[in-house]
Amino acid sequence: VTVVAAHDGADPIDAALPGPDRLRVAIIGIGLMGGSLGRALRAAGHVVIGCDLDDHRLQRAVELGAIDEWKPSITAAARGADVAFVAVPVLQVADAVVAALDAGAAVVSDMGSVKGPIVDQVRALRPAALRRFVAGHPMAGSEQTGVEGADPSLFTGRTWVLAPTPETDADAYATLRTLLASTGADVVAVEPDLHDELVAVVSHVPHLAAGTLMRLAADRSADAGVLLRLAAGGFRDMTRIAAGDPGIWPDICAANRGAIVSALDEYLAALGEIRDLVAAGDRPGLFHLLEQASRARRNLPVSAASAGPLVELRIPVPDRPGVFANITTALADRGVSIFDLEVAHSAEGGAGVLVIVVAEEYVERAEQALADRGHTCSVHAIG
Amino acid sequence: VTVVAAHDGADPIDAALPGPDRLRVAIIGIGLMGGSLGRALRAAGHVVIGCDLDDHRLQRAVELGAIDEWKPSITAAARGADVAFVAVPVLQVADAVVAALDAGAAVVSDMGSVKGPIVDQVRALRPAALRRFVAGHPMAGSEQTGVEGADPSLFTGRTWVLAPTPETDADAYATLRTLLASTGADVVAVEPDLHDELVAVVSHVPHLAAGTLMRLAADRSADAGVLLRLAAGGFRDMTRIAAGDPGIWPDICAANRGAIVSALDEYLAALGEIRDLVAAGDRPGLFHLLEQASRARRNLPVSAASAGPLVELRIPVPDRPGVFANITTALADRGVSIFDLEVAHSAEGGAGVLVIVVAEEYVERAEQALADRGHTCSVHAIG
Repeated sequence: VTVVAAHDGADPIDAALPGPDRLRVAIIGIGLMGGSLGRALRAAGHVVIGCDLDDHRLQRAVELGAIDEWKPSITAAARGADVAFVAVPVLQVADAVVAALDAGAAVVSDMGSVKGPIVDQVRALRPAALRRFVAGHPMAGSEQTGVEGADPSLFTGRTWVLAPTPETDADAYATLRTLLASTGADVVAVEPDLHDELVAVVSHVPHLAAGTLMRLAADRSADAGVLLRLAAGGFRDMTRIAAGDPGIWPDICAANRGAIVSALDEYLAALGEIRDLVAAGDRPGLFHLLEQASRARRNLPVSAASAGPLVELRIPVPDRPGVFANITTALADRGVSIFDLEVAHSAEGGAGVLVIVVAEEYVERAEQALADRGHTCSVHAIG
Repeated sequence: VTVVAAHDGADPIDAALPGPDRLRVAIIGIGLMGGSLGRALRAAGHVVIGCDLDDHRLQRAVELGAIDEWKPSITAAARGADVAFVAVPVLQVADAVVAALDAGAAVVSDMGSVKGPIVDQVRALRPAALRRFVAGHPMAGSEQTGVEGADPSLFTGRTWVLAPTPETDADAYATLRTLLASTGADVVAVEPDLHDELVAVVSHVPHLAAGTLMRLAADRSADAGVLLRLAAGGFRDMTRIAAGDPGIWPDICAANRGAIVSALDEYLAALGEIRDLVAAGDRPGLFHLLEQASRARRNLPVSAASAGPLVELRIPVPDRPGVFANITTALADRGVSIFDLEVAHSAEGGAGVLVIVVAEEYVERAEQALADRGHTCSVHAIG
């Protein structure tokens, strides 16, 4: 694993300095997500520095083992960090990322649920530093809130999206990826705008649809006593996510407005079609649509994890912008799950070799995805 | 418990005749629901006679312990039955109910997911026999299908709706209610049309909405590899019901067309409102709606069951049509959960006393509901 060297001349601030694999991680914003990440990374042996607007919360974070220590500003926390994570409300992410980049953190990432607008803002504000920023989004959550609910296993087995851009530095990505894998997360690379379009479909619109369904039922309050007893498992399943904290949704809807409106319009059109089929008594039409849905749902995999033997793909990569993002997202598009990834630099500098570890079952798809984008690779079985 | 006396002069057909609490039950249609009911009622000590179009299925039902024996026709199965259940596809229910009533079953019920149209059809075809028919709908289901999936605990703790009408005979209702309670179901009385309106909201529209959401995601098949890894728990929860057998939905949509179209129109209007709030960036408006939904979902009770002490309400009931349906549905409207119910006839005949057992916590609400409808009751603590 390539480890980022010491940088920016920051002084060590305590005796527990990172060893070669032990990173110094800053987390900006110690709520449920930031606190869970802190606990997971400390459990994996890293040093975690916290920063938050609320001193009381920082104190609790130390008591709960979510951070080793805390600093009074983003600049102080991010200075000398190998990786800085921004875990603040989505509309405040870009400014905090810029502050962490300016403080000299070697790699900066975030945990916001929208990626395109954040990348665009950082690109506009600090174009030269974008190589050190890799936007991220862990697909995990909890009914708990705040640092009190922080759970070191929150990310285990969950998908963690990283959204590399053409500017992304391969070493920065590899460092971040390895660090995140130590939380048990399943890291996948997705282009920022595609991420936003897809989460609108699988997360944002489902949340709005569940909330609307719950309100529809709640509006029948005159019949509430009976209605709630008729609400069997299907209704409970469908509306469960509506119970979450409503406070985050105005921000998410503002940040991902375009993709959400477009997915909602598609959903409204498709529901209108179903409504017309019911009204017209079109039985074959209804059966056809519901049969499609049933088949798709039954094909939804329970987990992307794989248990087969692993194979190493070694891909020579030219030192050219965009190559790295291009390769990782191409593999993700084909459904190839990356088990591990590192960058092997040639002794002569310049171009290097991207080493990607995948389950054997993915080799054929990976080779095809790489060939489509004009890359070659060699395949090596590993122990 | 009032037990219906022998009737219609039907001959006993085997030596295992029912004792005073052991009923002779016919089940018409031995699929998942009919088979599960058969297993549950046999486990509770009743005798179950099956009837189905498919002899092979009847043979399996005997082997699986879902029925004691089978008869070649509805008429033969229902003749001499204390209670006959019709568990056939919803559009075929009314005809089978009429056949069971004509065969002389003392009480006939069904398990269809729509109630108003079935009651209307039976009322039109056999107005005089409607007193012996109490439409029903167990709010239970399974991923399993057919008699092979029959599960005697399918109804345990689940709501079983009975839909009494002004014509319903109190003894018929009490017999049926006691029998169903022996499966572990939580029986609740709801007027037929209100049932249909409410299940459209909590069952039918949610199913169509889940299927549509699943199709929306499946349409992005070009990005399927990534999309499915982004689909976190919320999406899985929301679309789970879409995996069920699509074959039953054209019938349900046909049978409950009016209520479904009307609930879908409300849902479309409410979703359109959300869509406009997102497009307009109306943060307070979005927060308000999602906060309502979150509060309503958090108030959704996990179970209607109660553990407190029980109380008996004794309600003098005049021998007048509609009184009984009026009382049971009034209690359900107020959220009063009925633990047990029986009819005590006066020695002189004519009017009687309806005895309803409820948890102590419901007494005040029950008294108010009864007073609202012009009934008095006396309250007695029970051991």
